[in-house]
Amino acid sequence: MISYDPAGIDVLPITGVAALRKKMSGKRGVTWIDVAGVGDAGVLQEIGEIFGLHGLALEDVINVHQRPKIEEYPEHTFIVMQMSEIDDDFIPEQFSIFLGKDYVLSFQEKPGDCFDVIRTRLNQENSRIRHEGADYLAYALIDAVTDSYFPILERYGEAIETLEDEILDIPDIRCIHELHAFRRKLMLIRRAIWPLRDVLNTLTREHSPYISPQTQIYFRDCSDHCFQLIDIVDTARELAANIADLYHSGASVRMNEIMTVLTIIATIFIPLGFVASLYGMNFDRAVSPWNMPELGWRYGYLFSLALMATIASGLLGYFWYKNWIGPRKKRF
Amino acid sequence: MISYDPAGIDVLPITGVAALRKKMSGKRGVTWIDVAGVGDAGVLQEIGEIFGLHGLALEDVINVHQRPKIEEYPEHTFIVMQMSEIDDDFIPEQFSIFLGKDYVLSFQEKPGDCFDVIRTRLNQENSRIRHEGADYLAYALIDAVTDSYFPILERYGEAIETLEDEILDIPDIRCIHELHAFRRKLMLIRRAIWPLRDVLNTLTREHSPYISPQTQIYFRDCSDHCFQLIDIVDTARELAANIADLYHSGASVRMNEIMTVLTIIATIFIPLGFVASLYGMNFDRAVSPWNMPELGWRYGYLFSLALMATIASGLLGYFWYKNWIGPRKKRF
Amino acid sequence: MISYDPAGIDVLPITGVAALRKKMSGKRGVTWIDVAGVGDAGVLQEIGEIFGLHGLALEDVINVHQRPKIEEYPEHTFIVMQMSEIDDDFIPEQFSIFLGKDYVLSFQEKPGDCFDVIRTRLNQENSRIRHEGADYLAYALIDAVTDSYFPILERYGEAIETLEDEILDIPDIRCIHELHAFRRKLMLIRRAIWPLRDVLNTLTREHSPYISPQTQIYFRDCSDHCFQLIDIVDTARELAANIADLYHSGASVRMNEIMTVLTIIATIFIPLGFVASLYGMNFDRAVSPWNMPELGWRYGYLFSLALMATIASGLLGYFWYKNWIGPRKKRF
Amino acid sequence: MISYDPAGIDVLPITGVAALRKKMSGKRGVTWIDVAGVGDAGVLQEIGEIFGLHGLALEDVINVHQRPKIEEYPEHTFIVMQMSEIDDDFIPEQFSIFLGKDYVLSFQEKPGDCFDVIRTRLNQENSRIRHEGADYLAYALIDAVTDSYFPILERYGEAIETLEDEILDIPDIRCIHELHAFRRKLMLIRRAIWPLRDVLNTLTREHSPYISPQTQIYFRDCSDHCFQLIDIVDTARELAANIADLYHSGASVRMNEIMTVLTIIATIFIPLGFVASLYGMNFDRAVSPWNMPELGWRYGYLFSLALMATIASGLLGYFWYKNWIGPRKKRF
Amino acid sequence: MISYDPAGIDVLPITGVAALRKKMSGKRGVTWIDVAGVGDAGVLQEIGEIFGLHGLALEDVINVHQRPKIEEYPEHTFIVMQMSEIDDDFIPEQFSIFLGKDYVLSFQEKPGDCFDVIRTRLNQENSRIRHEGADYLAYALIDAVTDSYFPILERYGEAIETLEDEILDIPDIRCIHELHAFRRKLMLIRRAIWPLRDVLNTLTREHSPYISPQTQIYFRDCSDHCFQLIDIVDTARELAANIADLYHSGASVRMNEIMTVLTIIATIFIPLGFVASLYGMNFDRAVSPWNMPELGWRYGYLFSLALMATIASGLLGYFWYKNWIGPRKKRF
Repeated sequence: MISYDPAGIDVLPITGVAALRKKMSGKRGVTWIDVAGVGDAGVLQEIGEIFGLHGLALEDVINVHQRPKIEEYPEHTFIVMQMSEIDDDFIPEQFSIFLGKDYVLSFQEKPGDCFDVIRTRLNQENSRIRHEGADYLAYALIDAVTDSYFPILERYGEAIETLEDEILDIPDIRCIHELHAFRRKLMLIRRAIWPLRDVLNTLTREHSPYISPQTQIYFRDCSDHCFQLIDIVDTARELAANIADLYHSGASVRMNEIMTVLTIIATIFIPLGFVASLYGMNFDRAVSPWNMPELGWRYGYLFSLALMATIASGLLGYFWYKNWIGPRKKRF
Repeated sequence: MISYDPAGIDVLPITGVAALRKKMSGKRGVTWIDVAGVGDAGVLQEIGEIFGLHGLALEDVINVHQRPKIEEYPEHTFIVMQMSEIDDDFIPEQFSIFLGKDYVLSFQEKPGDCFDVIRTRLNQENSRIRHEGADYLAYALIDAVTDSYFPILERYGEAIETLEDEILDIPDIRCIHELHAFRRKLMLIRRAIWPLRDVLNTLTREHSPYISPQTQIYFRDCSDHCFQLIDIVDTARELAANIADLYHSGASVRMNEIMTVLTIIATIFIPLGFVASLYGMNFDRAVSPWNMPELGWRYGYLFSLALMATIASGLLGYFWYKNWIGPRKKRF
Repeated sequence: MISYDPAGIDVLPITGVAALRKKMSGKRGVTWIDVAGVGDAGVLQEIGEIFGLHGLALEDVINVHQRPKIEEYPEHTFIVMQMSEIDDDFIPEQFSIFLGKDYVLSFQEKPGDCFDVIRTRLNQENSRIRHEGADYLAYALIDAVTDSYFPILERYGEAIETLEDEILDIPDIRCIHELHAFRRKLMLIRRAIWPLRDVLNTLTREHSPYISPQTQIYFRDCSDHCFQLIDIVDTARELAANIADLYHSGASVRMNEIMTVLTIIATIFIPLGFVASLYGMNFDRAVSPWNMPELGWRYGYLFSLALMATIASGLLGYFWYKNWIGPRKKRF
Repeated sequence: MISYDPAGIDVLPITGVAALRKKMSGKRGVTWIDVAGVGDAGVLQEIGEIFGLHGLALEDVINVHQRPKIEEYPEHTFIVMQMSEIDDDFIPEQFSIFLGKDYVLSFQEKPGDCFDVIRTRLNQENSRIRHEGADYLAYALIDAVTDSYFPILERYGEAIETLEDEILDIPDIRCIHELHAFRRKLMLIRRAIWPLRDVLNTLTREHSPYISPQTQIYFRDCSDHCFQLIDIVDTARELAANIADLYHSGASVRMNEIMTVLTIIATIFIPLGFVASLYGMNFDRAVSPWNMPELGWRYGYLFSLALMATIASGLLGYFWYKNWIGPRKKRF
Repeated sequence: MISYDPAGIDVLPITGVAALRKKMSGKRGVTWIDVAGVGDAGVLQEIGEIFGLHGLALEDVINVHQRPKIEEYPEHTFIVMQMSEIDDDFIPEQFSIFLGKDYVLSFQEKPGDCFDVIRTRLNQENSRIRHEGADYLAYALIDAVTDSYFPILERYGEAIETLEDEILDIPDIRCIHELHAFRRKLMLIRRAIWPLRDVLNTLTREHSPYISPQTQIYFRDCSDHCFQLIDIVDTARELAANIADLYHSGASVRMNEIMTVLTIIATIFIPLGFVASLYGMNFDRAVSPWNMPELGWRYGYLFSLALMATIASGLLGYFWYKNWIGPRKKRF
């Protein structure tokens, strides 16, 4: 719980609901209560009673894996987002905000977040955030979550480009598996950001009793960032798809090469081997002159070698004509 | 037939239309008639007359395989949905609701449903559902149907992830057939949920004489669940498509490996075999010195072995250079 | 020509325009003129003059292969649809309707249609259609055309499922050709139904002087059917695409199996054959002891057999390790 | 330059701007000036001055390869379209129209067009076009251009169907190259027609000072034709894509067949060849009885033949079991 | 810094903010300040103060890689675009414009741009741009950026067509890598142009205090160019995708050819080789007449040759029947 107004700030770590109730009495202008861990439904119930939160919204806080959305209730605006549990990879964690007249309630699944910079700015006496209302604090939180996607996507983008280089060099199934993992992550991020766009659009466009017009301009900036994120994700997804295609092209090229070599060697040496086997037959030349007369020729061996050379050059010529060996040339 | 008001509840199992007519007289505030089995057109006709149902709507109840839709008639609101016949797999079953001023008529194709929890809550005296009107009951039914998709999709999601692991390990055609089966199921679920979204949007947005504004907020929650379902289905579909791609990548990698081994072995040993066959020819050395003089050389055998070794190492070197054997290295 | 009012019905087969003109004088409340065959432009011209039809609409009747569409003219509403020429396969045939105040003009390309049930109902004295106006007749005709797609699509769906089973069993190119034929048909049907949706939406939503609000509810039902048709077609198309993928998976699996067997047999026996050829060489052992001493060893033959056995088991072991033979096991 | 009113028509071939200026004075009700060749910017500039054309529009006339579009200027409506340079193939040529109160200015890139039928109708005294204003002439021109796509698309459609038959018979790379060429053409046509749809929609829907409501009905007809063109193009594109898939299926089937034959022959004869080579080894039986005793057996040869027959039948049985030879049977 | 009015123009190269402040006092009607290099946040801060620029907009100037967008602030209109750093390839560079009442502030990442033609026109006394306001200057800049994409895309289009020809001739993996590089570039350009469309639409449609209606007509022209760019990019992308398909077709055709040759040669010569090996066996004919009696036949050799010829012609006949050799003929 952080309670502040332009004059001062009180940071009050609270461990129980009773303590919260007590401290609410001495609060300053704007109060931010950050709840990490949403496992205990009873605690949430009591917090809900203190602030008059709607039951359906509280249920959404508890049942994580909600889609990002915004809901206007008479007493407060309720916003659900997905943020990442850790800094350099995307592990979805639900982040819910209740924005009331003079308070912001934020719920995270687990401790550890990207709000340290906000806390620092809250402690600086002349920072803008200290002089604005709860809506600006909500903006700061949402902006921090949105911006926390950038380094993750940057890391992914770099990793995908590394994979691209590797696949252009040596197509390897490991790259494909890694690429697949990235595509899954990007899919998850897209599903987290895409509806966020609508949430931010609603915040930017529609009038809400809890958000001042000045702050709406800031939400427009936040919405821009969100569009940029979608752009980055889409580019990365398209790139990943192209790289997968590239891998298949590379694999098929390799297969073609391998088959060409196999075919050339096999089709040349199998006929030659046949000729050699032919003259390795043991027909009894003593029985009749019709039996393998070549074996008794003066230049029989040379004849057989010449025969083989003819066959081999014929086939090589055919392969040359077919453009399978030698420098590539125009086919038509 | 369940008739209730905040004061009490009457559960009246009814087997014929005549009995229904009789019992309608002593009904309480809100009446829920759940008809399992829509085969008998005559019975439906009579029910339709009792409640003044529109003929086209009744036809839609009988002709199952309707698309989810909502239709406003002057006397009632008519909603068609698809639910699953069983709990852990998707077997489509049509579920139709007539929502009137003080009654809810629900039609299922077969007995067995996901409404036991609603019946339990109806029996609890101080449950919310007992104190609300027919519109809240309709919401509870629709919400129960919507929520019943979640465990099915969860099971599918897990099964697909298991398939993913299996395919990454051992690409097997059985996995592809299973994957195909899941894709068909997901396609069916998508077709069942997608129009449901419009139905729920209509219920949330538009004014209906039979739905109070308080209940509309609940339908908004239901609509959220529906969007989440679509998200889950789309994610699962995309994942399934990616896995199928992965399978093909794996299969092509395997093919590449197999062809490489075949090519290496064949292209090395076929030429060697040719040399061996060559010196197995039976040309008659007695006839002339031109016939296979190598056979009579002092080190002829060693020469032939050396020749073979040269050929083999030449080819191995070529394969090494081509990066087909040995540690993978950069190609460019 | 069928002319009817609640009191009676006159069925007047007409073969010429002159006859039509004459009979128009004694017509009853609602007149339905069904023209089969649109080849004779002169006849159409005269009919057009009798009813005051717009020239552009008449042109569309003659130039078949129009897209389904609806056009409002001051004197009448003009609707173009595609129906199937025969009952159990889709052979497109254009069906045009002019709906005026008290008449329906319908034009088919060829005799033979799906309207016998309407004619029967027209002949029944107390049928609804006899007591309604020309707009209800138009609805009945359009509904009959829309519904006539269902049995065709059902037949296609069954045929595609049969193909699916066959392809799962034995991938055969014949299945692919049949599948291709079905995909073409489905494409055609989709092109026929998709714009029909807009036509029916227009009929349902917009006010037309020739359609009463009561009949509009019926068109809404018709529009529902149309959406269902699109759903069925899309499902069938997606299924067909999936089956084609499945075929390719099956073919690639088969290829993989074949190549594995070829590789195993070839890579084992080619080296063995080389060893056998090696000891089949005829180097002259009499010349020097260096020439093929193995042939003179006491256990030379056994040695060669042992050598072959070693090679074979080495390769089999390699294949086992590579997971190409034996029970499939985890690769990682 | 063609100037006409219901009373008469003057056809004045003009070669220079000066002549144009002079002849403008004696013009009749509606004037159509058709400029073939847009290379000379100076001439265009002068024409622009005579009619008061907007500079940006004139630039669009000169810079061909514009997207079809419509622009309303205070003094005139400016329409750009793509038409085909020749009749039976699509070679894009830009066609621009300025529609003023009593004149139509049309610009083509090259002489030779599809407007001969319009010129003929203009010369007929009682043709409709003579009695209508400039807007009807513009419609006639646009309609002629739109309709000129039909024969081209028909020719393409027939050519693609021929290709389909050929590919079903003999998959040949030449077909694929032709198919590719058609797909490029279809892509170009689609890009030419797609924005035309918006142009015609604007002409149909929006009020323009230069187009009378009566003529707007004609533009609706033209818009219908445009939709039909898009339908035809899309169908052809989808068909072409399907045919390409079919080619790949055919090629893979062929590959499968070829590999099956290779595998069967190779895997049967390679082991047999090995056995034959085995008993072709020259181990010296005189040295010891362990050396190739089979050669001295009474029935050694028959034994070896039997061994080969056993191997061959074993493999054939395996292939039969694997369903690679013999009548195809169910696999599961 | 360029300051001009119809009467004259002052070009003042400015290197520091202090100099800017000083020179602002003597400025003429319209001032254009072009800042190349946005690295120094302090300088931007000061410029921002001089012109009263909004903080969020300034942040967007510094954080490059923004999506093209337009933002209306009370004091100015802020536009972000992507332009290319160099002339003949696309290297994205952010270009930001602040359009105020009488000034245009433009920010580029690096020196070097496509605005030389504008500077030239500014220096011409009677050029249009000198007589119009700041909005026309902004249009000129945006138009110059938009038009600078055309030569780049033209170059890409030509390069892709060259690749197409090469791939039709000789499918080579190098082409695929180049194609992949072009597809990435096109993807980037598309992402740069697509949102630009919305920006220009906003400029064309919506009323802005800083843009006069006359200039809006020019922005409409600019928007047309943008649509044309999108068309060109999409065509190029589709073409590139088709070419990649073509490559795969070509590769698979080549593979088919290679496999056919291998299969024909191997399946003919492997059985022949087997027969030759058979009669090369050394069974001892002296032991019994059952051992290889063929070797002692009078015409044994001829018999063996005839046997081989029979096998070879049988196989050739089979291949002919299978349509693998000889002129292609109809399969069905």
